[in-house]
Amino acid sequence: MSDTTQIQAGRDVATLINVFTVAPERQAQLVALLTRATEETMRHRPGFISANIHASADGERVVNYAQWESEEHFRAMLADPGAREHMTEAAALAESFDPRMFSVESVHHV
Amino acid sequence: MSDTTQIQAGRDVATLINVFTVAPERQAQLVALLTRATEETMRHRPGFISANIHASADGERVVNYAQWESEEHFRAMLADPGAREHMTEAAALAESFDPRMFSVESVHHV
Repeated sequence: MSDTTQIQAGRDVATLINVFTVAPERQAQLVALLTRATEETMRHRPGFISANIHASADGERVVNYAQWESEEHFRAMLADPGAREHMTEAAALAESFDPRMFSVESVHHV
Repeated sequence: MSDTTQIQAGRDVATLINVFTVAPERQAQLVALLTRATEETMRHRPGFISANIHASADGERVVNYAQWESEEHFRAMLADPGAREHMTEAAALAESFDPRMFSVESVHHV
């Protein structure tokens, strides 16, 4: 199930949710950039588990829901020159972005 | 795997990501409220697939990553009096909230 991301409470994973605010006419370009950056760079870094790129129906947001083995792995990736280049490009396309680390508090199903 | 949420690209699911901005001293209370509201009300509504409540490490955000069979199911739930009561309570605890519908554009793994 390498194409399926799993969310579970109590799992030892660091979740990064990065909310990008973007002009609707640039949303598709930002999605393409994040997809390419993840394939080329982020997913090859130690501790990477998953990235899940979402586009809002109203065109105004892009959300990357990403999982890392630890926050330290995520921070080490941030220092990678290739990753920094991609993030500078993403920052230039977006109006703003708000990356934060989260824990999964609860998971609910039917 | 009823305690595991799955994210897949191309799956016919409506994703709601609701980002709550909250004072850190009220974050735990908001998480508890959303957890209770989901168990008591939302998960019994038609079309509910999952809700996943996240707390940011800095205390300033709560994110509900929820999946519904369609946007119409989600909108029908919003009209439910029990759901509205819970959401009024959540709105009173949060400084702001920003619910939007998303599609999963891409999923990446190692």
